[in-house]
Amino acid sequence: MKCRKCGGRAVLELRRHNTAFCGPDFLNFFQHHVLETVRRWRMFTRDEPVLVAVSGGKDSLALWEVLHGAGYRTTGLYIDLGIFDYSRASKARCEAFAAERGLDLRVVAVADEVGAAIPAVKAATRRPTCSACGLSKRYILNRAAMEGGFPVVATGHNLDDEAATLFGSTLRWDESALARQMPVLAATHARLARRVKPLFRMSERETAAYAFLRGIDYIVEECPFSRGATSITHKELLNRLEDTSPGSKAMFLQGFLDKARGLFQERETVTLLECVRCGQTTTGEVCAFCKLRDQVKRGVRPVEAVPAAEPPDSEDPPAARGLISDLHAASEIHAP
Amino acid sequence: MKCRKCGGRAVLELRRHNTAFCGPDFLNFFQHHVLETVRRWRMFTRDEPVLVAVSGGKDSLALWEVLHGAGYRTTGLYIDLGIFDYSRASKARCEAFAAERGLDLRVVAVADEVGAAIPAVKAATRRPTCSACGLSKRYILNRAAMEGGFPVVATGHNLDDEAATLFGSTLRWDESALARQMPVLAATHARLARRVKPLFRMSERETAAYAFLRGIDYIVEECPFSRGATSITHKELLNRLEDTSPGSKAMFLQGFLDKARGLFQERETVTLLECVRCGQTTTGEVCAFCKLRDQVKRGVRPVEAVPAAEPPDSEDPPAARGLISDLHAASEIHAP
Repeated sequence: MKCRKCGGRAVLELRRHNTAFCGPDFLNFFQHHVLETVRRWRMFTRDEPVLVAVSGGKDSLALWEVLHGAGYRTTGLYIDLGIFDYSRASKARCEAFAAERGLDLRVVAVADEVGAAIPAVKAATRRPTCSACGLSKRYILNRAAMEGGFPVVATGHNLDDEAATLFGSTLRWDESALARQMPVLAATHARLARRVKPLFRMSERETAAYAFLRGIDYIVEECPFSRGATSITHKELLNRLEDTSPGSKAMFLQGFLDKARGLFQERETVTLLECVRCGQTTTGEVCAFCKLRDQVKRGVRPVEAVPAAEPPDSEDPPAARGLISDLHAASEIHAP
Repeated sequence: MKCRKCGGRAVLELRRHNTAFCGPDFLNFFQHHVLETVRRWRMFTRDEPVLVAVSGGKDSLALWEVLHGAGYRTTGLYIDLGIFDYSRASKARCEAFAAERGLDLRVVAVADEVGAAIPAVKAATRRPTCSACGLSKRYILNRAAMEGGFPVVATGHNLDDEAATLFGSTLRWDESALARQMPVLAATHARLARRVKPLFRMSERETAAYAFLRGIDYIVEECPFSRGATSITHKELLNRLEDTSPGSKAMFLQGFLDKARGLFQERETVTLLECVRCGQTTTGEVCAFCKLRDQVKRGVRPVEAVPAAEPPDSEDPPAARGLISDLHAASEIHAP
């Protein structure tokens, strides 16, 4: 197989683009597509400081690498979920990545903000773990942006993530979630940062190849709480479809953005208020994050009773409900 | 496992309804649901003569059986596609079904209407087979209804069929197809019959169980040209989803009807004209069926050159294109 660009030996075939590239030409292709996405969707300018949410995984580190390499003003934010070895290893990857490149990395611990790390939140509340975790991450990310003077936050959501979320929302025809499915969520309130997803056109396989070829040391393991999640079932189904018809995921997501999303957005009318407790945006009186913090306060058992080093059960989380609550909670942080 | 109704031995578990039934109670359950669907969606009244499209398969024969049993005024229409043994066997099933019950069955042959049977149409045109066949069936069905004085035609599309069609349309965000995805398509022109799908809430497994338990002798084989069709891939994916979360298909279809279809319908503005050649409805000057007939006339090879008894190639039809053309062609017969 030959590189479509230089005719040299290809290392990666991209069936959905009906092409193949050698290493250097793939890296160029990837960077070009990401930066083109940033420009075309007016995600941010060269003057705007961008807070990049990094998890230690391939997507967010590849994103940070591309943006930094192109001269954008980036700062990393690592949210420490306190999930056993998984969090320790992912934090170390982010710190090493930033140190090697002389980049600024900020760290916020869920335990400090919510009152307990995610495993203890799971134990203390009846809420599905992915839901509480997603809510906490969105809240912390937005507040860190506001406090640090960042008008925009960037996350590493890739094509597979976005297509799977869209697939789940479409199966339920969840109008609010469909209205919010966007690569750019504008700041619709003074207390909200713009939220952008510059990798939304790049597949998981492509970001993995990019991170690998660039020698980025990322954490390969998935979060132990994600086992059995509905979003993973949906990703598997979409992968089967992609195998049969390369380009299906991109067609599904792009077709939605071009032809359908506007229909759902027109129906959405959300009035954002400020939480009487913390001042962050909410659709009610007290925001979902403050309610979660209260639940945790009431429910946390003494430290010795929480089996801190124990890996989570494999049947957790009750994923369908988790995803639904997660998406509902999202409306409190970002309304269209 | 016990019957939820009478406590006797259950023969069928319905996971999506979280229930199980003995044979007689399942038959009641099935009939009740179908008749309730006819009433709630105002598909037709007891006074209206209904033309039931029958293929010899489980769905259409089960539908005819339920409607006839409930006292509706039904007549069957079998469209002979001329597809080798498959058509011979399916026609025989329809004739036996009608004869045993003293019902009126009409037969129209595609060869008489289009100028050649489906295998020869396939050979004579470059059009995907499923597309030409679907177009011919819709045309013949509607014309037979008009000529026979039937205000309404009923087809045996079940939940699996409808969910798979919706899935395909959603993957492409095909706005016209989404606008037309309805269990009742009103007659929007004097030359159109109302088209209804009374089985759209019953799964394929349920209609198979009904036909089996009622002793209906139906053809089990699928059309040989359907091998490898995209719609079959989509059905398989939805089956995997249903296995993981029973009720997914129904939620997907019903959610669409309740929450999303109206959004797409509002955008659709189709003006129906009468074909200058045959008088049936079309969006252009000459309808798609007349164009197909012309293509066939020009392209049909002498009978001896067509390998009449040869089974079709397994890689046929180029299904994605087929489905798309099929759905486009549908707009010429039924606009919302």
